[in-house]
Amino acid sequence: MVLDNLCRGRAEYLDPVRETSPGRIHFSNVDLSDRDATTAAFAAAAQIGVIDEVWHLAANSDIPAGVMDAGVDLRDTFMTTFSLLECMKAHRVGVLHFASSSAIYGDLGNVPLHEAIGPLLPISNYGAMKLASEALIAAAAESFLKQANLFRFPNVVGAPATHGVILDFINKLKVDADHLDVLGDGTQQKAYLHVSDLVDAMMHIRRAAQLPKIFPINIGPVDDGVTVRFIAHAVTARVRPKADIRFGIGNKGWIGDVPKFYYSVERLRQAGWTPSRNSADAVCHAIDQIATQEGFAAGGSHG
Amino acid sequence: MVLDNLCRGRAEYLDPVRETSPGRIHFSNVDLSDRDATTAAFAAAAQIGVIDEVWHLAANSDIPAGVMDAGVDLRDTFMTTFSLLECMKAHRVGVLHFASSSAIYGDLGNVPLHEAIGPLLPISNYGAMKLASEALIAAAAESFLKQANLFRFPNVVGAPATHGVILDFINKLKVDADHLDVLGDGTQQKAYLHVSDLVDAMMHIRRAAQLPKIFPINIGPVDDGVTVRFIAHAVTARVRPKADIRFGIGNKGWIGDVPKFYYSVERLRQAGWTPSRNSADAVCHAIDQIATQEGFAAGGSHG
Repeated sequence: MVLDNLCRGRAEYLDPVRETSPGRIHFSNVDLSDRDATTAAFAAAAQIGVIDEVWHLAANSDIPAGVMDAGVDLRDTFMTTFSLLECMKAHRVGVLHFASSSAIYGDLGNVPLHEAIGPLLPISNYGAMKLASEALIAAAAESFLKQANLFRFPNVVGAPATHGVILDFINKLKVDADHLDVLGDGTQQKAYLHVSDLVDAMMHIRRAAQLPKIFPINIGPVDDGVTVRFIAHAVTARVRPKADIRFGIGNKGWIGDVPKFYYSVERLRQAGWTPSRNSADAVCHAIDQIATQEGFAAGGSHG
Repeated sequence: MVLDNLCRGRAEYLDPVRETSPGRIHFSNVDLSDRDATTAAFAAAAQIGVIDEVWHLAANSDIPAGVMDAGVDLRDTFMTTFSLLECMKAHRVGVLHFASSSAIYGDLGNVPLHEAIGPLLPISNYGAMKLASEALIAAAAESFLKQANLFRFPNVVGAPATHGVILDFINKLKVDADHLDVLGDGTQQKAYLHVSDLVDAMMHIRRAAQLPKIFPINIGPVDDGVTVRFIAHAVTARVRPKADIRFGIGNKGWIGDVPKFYYSVERLRQAGWTPSRNSADAVCHAIDQIATQEGFAAGGSHG
């Protein structure tokens, strides 16, 4: 059973799965922040079969929107977690996989961000509501959950894209084919994972034996990431090779954005998983996919 | 301006302050989890004078109740924080003092719990919603707050008492003067601070210069605490010296309770504050106060 309010996704994205597993996918258009609607959808799912586990991926993904209006992350990121846990408790579902975020770490400077670091002082409401969700899940693990994996996502790229720096740059270059204005000086550096590797990593952990009952784990590439400057150049090369890139001042793009950080994926490596693409490869592959999605002819140099 | 829904407190507790500062205390009966009511109360307060700072002490304090029904801590602990931050943003109030809790640390075993330890996996909804509140405040500090102190309370004792182990034992001994049944084997050990020392510590930090903008700080005594066994004997000695104490099995009283833990107060000590009473003194003083409150003649051996 797939529950989604389709604010970003589309029901037809499930078509390939419907074809490979006919009759096994059920879709329900539900806003998971709506407690009553979620309760009803859970009851309907329980009619179809036993609910063994829940994958909770619903959240606001527009960080600046949540900084402007704290109600966005409250509703879409936190209350979705609250509603789902209430349903899982009522239906005695013991296994939860949760899409958490590196944003829970806030800005700790140049120290490697490993799973046991602190203090956890997120600098965006997005990060705050992801940490709040983790906290609620931890309490549920003490009370009724059998297993809870807290997948701390890095910056993820890939298609279909609905937002993010790559799509922003491509959209800017649609409007002005000659110039690309970049927020900040371009030295912001982040690690990126391709969405296909992200899914692969989560499935790897799901299969792992004898994990701690509540298991926070960073998911990311093993490199230190790429700069905004790199992305600007790669996007321009793919869609408007002659455009002029103009950088701004400072290395923070917007309130809530964390500049350069070092994301430790030692725990994931010890669990036996490594990504198929590093940050640069992931970004270039995503640029080609998103450029194609946005109507720029396929087959760029990074395809 | 004092805002409270009087679910535990009483308006007359403000009488001594009214006497020493006539006309300077305003009270409003408001449930801070009610966003509209809080907004109205804030607007009323702003009419009286400039709001310089907010002390946010409102929360559910019944941990087992929150384990049974996650809605309790959501409403009373988390949504109160959310509502207050929204009001502070609207009225440009830059300073927040927040009553956080040692419960945010969960059960990390025998390591000293200092302010930068992790992972933060609370084991009760109470701890989860306190951590969630901290996260929200941290994001607000990045966005609009000038200063936020996160006071991580230990177990606090004193009068007037509305709940807690001392009052529980006294109430049990009212019902059965001959026996005191203790949940668990009595080896649970916790550090306790008297409420008068807690207030003194917060005022000390409030006066401190040049704190980090967002400042989590453990407040507690410097000792390792006392056992439930100690409290059971001290309560019995004060109110029913001849009663027989009977212990249970195991060292966890109830789901969400953290057994013995080591609470680091090094940061508080470095800020120049030490408590006037250690755990044993704080507990014995509180026992005498609460016994008097509950009608047992004053002047016990620990008075």
